[in-house]
Amino acid sequence: MLVALAGGVGGAKLAQGLMLAGAEGSSTEYSRTDPAQVDPSVPELSVVVNTADDFEIVGLRISPDLDTVLYTLAGIANPETGWGVAGDSFASLDMLGRYGADTWFRLGDRDFATHILRTQRLREGRTLTAITAELAAALGVGPRVLPMTDDSVATVVETPAGNLAFQDYFVRRHQTDEVRGVRFAGIESAGIPAGVVAAIRSADLIVLCPSNPIVSIGPILAVPGMVERLRAAAAPKVAVSPIVGGRALKGPADRMLASLGHEVSPLGVARLYRGLVQGMVIDMVDADRRGAIEELGMRVLVTTAVMGGPEDRRRLAAEVIDFGHTLT
Amino acid sequence: MLVALAGGVGGAKLAQGLMLAGAEGSSTEYSRTDPAQVDPSVPELSVVVNTADDFEIVGLRISPDLDTVLYTLAGIANPETGWGVAGDSFASLDMLGRYGADTWFRLGDRDFATHILRTQRLREGRTLTAITAELAAALGVGPRVLPMTDDSVATVVETPAGNLAFQDYFVRRHQTDEVRGVRFAGIESAGIPAGVVAAIRSADLIVLCPSNPIVSIGPILAVPGMVERLRAAAAPKVAVSPIVGGRALKGPADRMLASLGHEVSPLGVARLYRGLVQGMVIDMVDADRRGAIEELGMRVLVTTAVMGGPEDRRRLAAEVIDFGHTLT
Repeated sequence: MLVALAGGVGGAKLAQGLMLAGAEGSSTEYSRTDPAQVDPSVPELSVVVNTADDFEIVGLRISPDLDTVLYTLAGIANPETGWGVAGDSFASLDMLGRYGADTWFRLGDRDFATHILRTQRLREGRTLTAITAELAAALGVGPRVLPMTDDSVATVVETPAGNLAFQDYFVRRHQTDEVRGVRFAGIESAGIPAGVVAAIRSADLIVLCPSNPIVSIGPILAVPGMVERLRAAAAPKVAVSPIVGGRALKGPADRMLASLGHEVSPLGVARLYRGLVQGMVIDMVDADRRGAIEELGMRVLVTTAVMGGPEDRRRLAAEVIDFGHTLT
Repeated sequence: MLVALAGGVGGAKLAQGLMLAGAEGSSTEYSRTDPAQVDPSVPELSVVVNTADDFEIVGLRISPDLDTVLYTLAGIANPETGWGVAGDSFASLDMLGRYGADTWFRLGDRDFATHILRTQRLREGRTLTAITAELAAALGVGPRVLPMTDDSVATVVETPAGNLAFQDYFVRRHQTDEVRGVRFAGIESAGIPAGVVAAIRSADLIVLCPSNPIVSIGPILAVPGMVERLRAAAAPKVAVSPIVGGRALKGPADRMLASLGHEVSPLGVARLYRGLVQGMVIDMVDADRRGAIEELGMRVLVTTAVMGGPEDRRRLAAEVIDFGHTLT
């Protein structure tokens, strides 16, 4: 059993790689680069996903990171954006715009179906965990996709313009505000779903995906008891740096790290995960940070950490698995 | 002020005709056959619409008759079906089908926007009357479109297969069940919105559109106090027969009238409206029923009661207005 902690696009890419590489590591031969060829009856992988970005718009509950992971694992994610459904249309959103509704969050017609069904199920009293399992099954997604919590948590971004809801900062205002602080409203009363507890306990390897350490992995680690459970798990923990050559692979992680006083490098990320992970995977362009990371008590794998298509994701995932299994 | 009582497609067509003809009757010259040319700031027409067909699917509140009237008056109704939005796509519904949701009610992507916004507003505590006004304004619809009630009413169709929810009977089972009875659950506690009361009180003419007299006009008349208010109004009342040559212009009105023991003709319809309307508009093919309808104490206009496009709708509406104003 492999457990991945993931946010949106970057996390979803590595999660897909881990799915394709399988839980047994790269020593097995894999021809399963086509998601459709993966046997959905074998959930070798559990992906624990950030839900602190979740929000409501036009009365619908949106779970951006869960959907990005689901769509990516289902092989239907938009390859240009990394989020949304490939080839989606925007007729509903255009009509909502005609009605004067907010349209800054670009919801496609197929994507709307996900939000409509999720909202319906939530109103029926089902948990986000159960709903996500239903969606995953319908999309033929083999790995378990697990929300970090079934409770409501909302990332608040503190900026010179005031406190912003995460999607307001991230999508509507295009991450242009200086981030002075981040907090997760509701986190103190958020519980860890039983499926997450079980997955962590039975894991052979736990991978922190190359997602934003502050607002994607951060909320997962901030759920009360999560860090303790991760530390208590027998499995080695390895993190893949989302910072390569001083830049975030996607999103505002670089600027966010800088404005919050962290070094914008794999070393800065490693410091945030100190005491939790035993290994860091960093890109070759950052090989000069190897020594400093090792001084934190971590082992380091230097490789190509930038992922392209599914085969590239599988390649990195297989290296991460091999590296992870050498950690104690 | 002209008031029309309407159900879905047939009612919406005549309502559009009344909008285009204007409230002053056919004695004025009209070049306003293009809905876009109608000044939306002059609400000369109020359309009171059946809401007993309303239902919920995938967690969204659908108001089929209100939407058909709105889309028709906005000039965006699908000309082939009479309902839905012209040129709409079905990506959301297809995706919902992939998730295993019900797809027998064919909701288009643009149409979904209406239901999403309506559902959001209802959950915010707004009335259906206020929401409908918001949608109408956004679509540039000049006439007031008024739900018959803001309360929940649900048509139940009694059949040999049991009691069916209206859309179950109408859409999912294609109106193939024999109708043994019809009742409107919740009607006893339904109130008449203030806007409907005011429209009826200030009307110069009240038109019962060629909608199903049992399940479209029937629920409107069944709202407690509605018939009394219509009778008390100074305005003459005129009905347009939805039955032409022994057939319903659209839908199951003919079979429904027959199985409930009514004559399937304008005479059968006139008997249902006896004591309420002073005039019936019937098609030339039914001219032989004129005498029997007049014996009910009504005056009769024989004309072409079948409507084609907007110009034809305007033509019939103008005749109805002229005829109505001759009634006392």
